[in-house]
Amino acid sequence: MSKIERVGITIEKELLPAFDALIAAEGYTNRSKAICDLIRERLSQKQLSQSSAYAVAGVFLIYDHHETKLSQKLVGLQHNHLLEVIASTHVHLDHHNCLEVIMLRGKVMDIEKLGNNITSLKGVKLSRMNMMAIEA
Amino acid sequence: MSKIERVGITIEKELLPAFDALIAAEGYTNRSKAICDLIRERLSQKQLSQSSAYAVAGVFLIYDHHETKLSQKLVGLQHNHLLEVIASTHVHLDHHNCLEVIMLRGKVMDIEKLGNNITSLKGVKLSRMNMMAIEA
Amino acid sequence: MSKIERVGITIEKELLPAFDALIAAEGYTNRSKAICDLIRERLSQKQLSQSSAYAVAGVFLIYDHHETKLSQKLVGLQHNHLLEVIASTHVHLDHHNCLEVIMLRGKVMDIEKLGNNITSLKGVKLSRMNMMAIEA
Amino acid sequence: MSKIERVGITIEKELLPAFDALIAAEGYTNRSKAICDLIRERLSQKQLSQSSAYAVAGVFLIYDHHETKLSQKLVGLQHNHLLEVIASTHVHLDHHNCLEVIMLRGKVMDIEKLGNNITSLKGVKLSRMNMMAIEA
Repeated sequence: MSKIERVGITIEKELLPAFDALIAAEGYTNRSKAICDLIRERLSQKQLSQSSAYAVAGVFLIYDHHETKLSQKLVGLQHNHLLEVIASTHVHLDHHNCLEVIMLRGKVMDIEKLGNNITSLKGVKLSRMNMMAIEA
Repeated sequence: MSKIERVGITIEKELLPAFDALIAAEGYTNRSKAICDLIRERLSQKQLSQSSAYAVAGVFLIYDHHETKLSQKLVGLQHNHLLEVIASTHVHLDHHNCLEVIMLRGKVMDIEKLGNNITSLKGVKLSRMNMMAIEA
Repeated sequence: MSKIERVGITIEKELLPAFDALIAAEGYTNRSKAICDLIRERLSQKQLSQSSAYAVAGVFLIYDHHETKLSQKLVGLQHNHLLEVIASTHVHLDHHNCLEVIMLRGKVMDIEKLGNNITSLKGVKLSRMNMMAIEA
Repeated sequence: MSKIERVGITIEKELLPAFDALIAAEGYTNRSKAICDLIRERLSQKQLSQSSAYAVAGVFLIYDHHETKLSQKLVGLQHNHLLEVIASTHVHLDHHNCLEVIMLRGKVMDIEKLGNNITSLKGVKLSRMNMMAIEA
């Protein structure tokens, strides 16, 4: 559990009711958590802009179910073993398509390099990748 | 000038120094302005998710300099005159390419419809579009 | 395996070598697969812009490890059981943080509604969500 | 006018009618132009990922109309005159707000550095920035 500090901020008067309405609609019961979340998100984005920062990534693939061992092939794309596969989950979507989610940990630059090579793999139809900065 | 209100928030202790360092690096001299900017950005994004909200848009185009009257063609794509062109600026980039920036005002849904049709225009090579929510 | 068709396209002469270099660097051995991937991606994006289309989503969360049963809480946010949880994977990142990836299937609008409510949950520190269009 | 080349590609049979329908809805009269646009967009994105590549940028600001000389302040943020302002356009949106669009040319890394500092300027309420890669 993190220690908590109380700070005062000045805010334009018309922003507050609009923000309070928005966060209430999103299920927040607490304005401070909503502001902390904005700050945390901004810090995470900044960290991701540094190529040597550490991040976890979720690689999300739809591919032809005839292809196999995609996780290994993906990691094989990284010759120097710079990325650590934390976990992967495989789901059968329908007759033709599988969904695979691979969670990785490594430096932003190595994750991005991997991301650029995913869709080229035989059988891969669509891919998405997310990164979130973490402490090393 | 907006009226200003003072509010207190609780924030995790380790977030503050990291946030203060980030905003100082971006030129902020004032933590409250940085937090207000995060809130304003979030409100704007929310408003843009509503298709009947009003927005201003900036359409950025690179196109072949042999093509002319793109602003008119673009607006012509909107048969019912649902968008108002506020201003447009035309720049010669090089022998082959012009840059045109067109500022529009209208409903999000009408701006998006236009955005989907821009690149199909003869001579257009690349396009980008931005929206920012405004009060109607 | 999909049936394949051969089509001819005309392309600006200077685009081809640049595109061939880019896709080779990304590991493609086949220009047609690279073009099909661009087309597939574009079709998927278009489909996702329709709120009643079907999609699979990957929700990525970092949260405080003291919080439990996030998958259930997340789905509980959707009172009408409009989303189907396909699978979820839980990973311990460090003393303070867990990573959870939840794969969902449903309509774009229901997934987006869920996405807007995730970060408000107690203990959630960061979240990302991806969608990929699929056939219903 | 660019020289044109004819190439053959193989494409999954079910992708073609879906792609043709999508591009027709977007106003394309020509499948080859639609495919060239996808290729050009991909090349541009790739080029923008290289921090020393050249780009044009459109900076799009909403700010309090009491603030003046924003273009100069913005460029002043770049002490070493690494960016060239091509043009700027100023529009009065309403009693409180102005819209300013500033077109710049320079290296990706210098444009990004500027982009990170824009919102910190006094009076700036919202900002967006677009880049499109160009030949130097």
